[in-house]
Amino acid sequence: MRLRMEKFIKEQQKEIVKVLEQIDGKKFRVDEWQRKEGGGGITCVLQDGNVFEKAGVGVSVVYGTLGQAGIKSMRVNHKSLGGDAVPDSLAFFAAGLSLIVHAKNPMVPTVHLNYRYFETANPDGTSSAWWFGGGSDLTPNYLFDEDAIHFHKTLKDVCDKHNKDYYPRFKKWCDEYFYNKHRSESRGLGGIFFDDLDAAVCDKENTFSFIQDGLKAFLPSYVPIVNKRKDMAFTEAERQWQQVRRGRYVEFNLVHDRGTAFGLNTPGPRVEAILMSLPLTASWRYMHEVGPRSREQRLVDVLKTPKQWV
Amino acid sequence: MRLRMEKFIKEQQKEIVKVLEQIDGKKFRVDEWQRKEGGGGITCVLQDGNVFEKAGVGVSVVYGTLGQAGIKSMRVNHKSLGGDAVPDSLAFFAAGLSLIVHAKNPMVPTVHLNYRYFETANPDGTSSAWWFGGGSDLTPNYLFDEDAIHFHKTLKDVCDKHNKDYYPRFKKWCDEYFYNKHRSESRGLGGIFFDDLDAAVCDKENTFSFIQDGLKAFLPSYVPIVNKRKDMAFTEAERQWQQVRRGRYVEFNLVHDRGTAFGLNTPGPRVEAILMSLPLTASWRYMHEVGPRSREQRLVDVLKTPKQWV
Repeated sequence: MRLRMEKFIKEQQKEIVKVLEQIDGKKFRVDEWQRKEGGGGITCVLQDGNVFEKAGVGVSVVYGTLGQAGIKSMRVNHKSLGGDAVPDSLAFFAAGLSLIVHAKNPMVPTVHLNYRYFETANPDGTSSAWWFGGGSDLTPNYLFDEDAIHFHKTLKDVCDKHNKDYYPRFKKWCDEYFYNKHRSESRGLGGIFFDDLDAAVCDKENTFSFIQDGLKAFLPSYVPIVNKRKDMAFTEAERQWQQVRRGRYVEFNLVHDRGTAFGLNTPGPRVEAILMSLPLTASWRYMHEVGPRSREQRLVDVLKTPKQWV
Repeated sequence: MRLRMEKFIKEQQKEIVKVLEQIDGKKFRVDEWQRKEGGGGITCVLQDGNVFEKAGVGVSVVYGTLGQAGIKSMRVNHKSLGGDAVPDSLAFFAAGLSLIVHAKNPMVPTVHLNYRYFETANPDGTSSAWWFGGGSDLTPNYLFDEDAIHFHKTLKDVCDKHNKDYYPRFKKWCDEYFYNKHRSESRGLGGIFFDDLDAAVCDKENTFSFIQDGLKAFLPSYVPIVNKRKDMAFTEAERQWQQVRRGRYVEFNLVHDRGTAFGLNTPGPRVEAILMSLPLTASWRYMHEVGPRSREQRLVDVLKTPKQWV
């Protein structure tokens, strides 16, 4: 599974980069890197493009030993890790693909996706656990209901094909996770999020097949939205609202996102890869207000009260 | 002392606002606010001015009950709080002035300052402890040695007048506190920072006098630098470097600053007042590089290895 997952995410990275380059007309920069403690990855970033302000598609395949702090941090999302007591250390393997796309046009939503496979091993080398996690979520500056419905419907179709419980459960988890608690508002319109598909609840082959379908659904979930919105006219005020929303995105990623905090607090972090998720530009306007019946307020209303889109 | 501190910081707020308005030509917006649980404050912000991109000067005078989480969080900087065991709750009073100035011209450094007075009370109403904390630090995008020397010398003179140990101790504390650990670099050129001036180490009257001198030194420490740099010519590349440095400032405030984290995680935070410290605009450029002998690199070198300026 380790090799199959690695092969799959590397193929997908190439495919996604190729399609995004076709849309933008500009090429991604490709950085291959090694991790001193074991493994490495490939980070692809397109910055200041024609359509995309910043698009990052990263693959990492890393392994090594997880200390107690790392085990505890992983347990937040995956409760059964390491058994009842927290062991002193665990050997681990992790392979994942992460991507984020911030577009220039304020009418194009930001999208984020991550799919990952974990394995841990006992001190004697036998496998102790495996699990898959992942998800994908959409963060617009302006709400187009049809885009939200298209995005969620694409994800729901993938989920339903594998398990009718997945979409409602993972949609709820996503709404709860991507929440800017200090603002009492969601980061965006959600999607799906999960971190618990393991031997206790599912068959490994079927789950890998679900993960593959989920990742392959990215381009059909997002590309039609980009094509519909990327050439829409916008005003300077709409661009400013986009910048304020980008600020909220930064707040979530730096204040609340456990993955980012975990990465930055690891000794010798590859900061540029972790923070490729941050937008090229963002703004914080003191007491920024929007009109009571404006399109901006309509978005905020939905962020305060998540909707069922499908 | 509660009333004297409140009176003093409110006078200083007026004075600082007046001087910054004279420099900028634009007026501050003034918001008075009440805190449901006790107390309130005045937040003054000048945004998108002629000289200042964002300047915020806030006073808060709040009181109430601190739970265990709050006590533990305050103990990080003030170890003796609440005695040997952590009590379930403590009545507290806190009065402070915070300010931050981000200027438009990349040659003008950002400055941050905070002076505060705390008091806690036992359940029977008797005073359990008091202490003062504070400090001020400078964050340039381009290094002008004479500015760094002027800023530090002004602070050192104030410190030396009261206690010869203060400047070396508080300078070191500042370098250690305002440190972007994940980048292995300081936020800026430092200044002074302290949170432990209490009955165990000092006389209350003398300490209040030190706090007053520290706050009154703000305008002489910063205004001459603004006047010298605000009309300097700069290039688009220098403006971009300023935006990248602003991004690092955001990273410190949202990832590492305990005051911000404490504020945002308090129930019902006044988010706009807490986050007035964030710049109007910031940027994250993937793998942003600067020339090996450039002025940008010279700043980074000093951020990696803090200097003794006086």
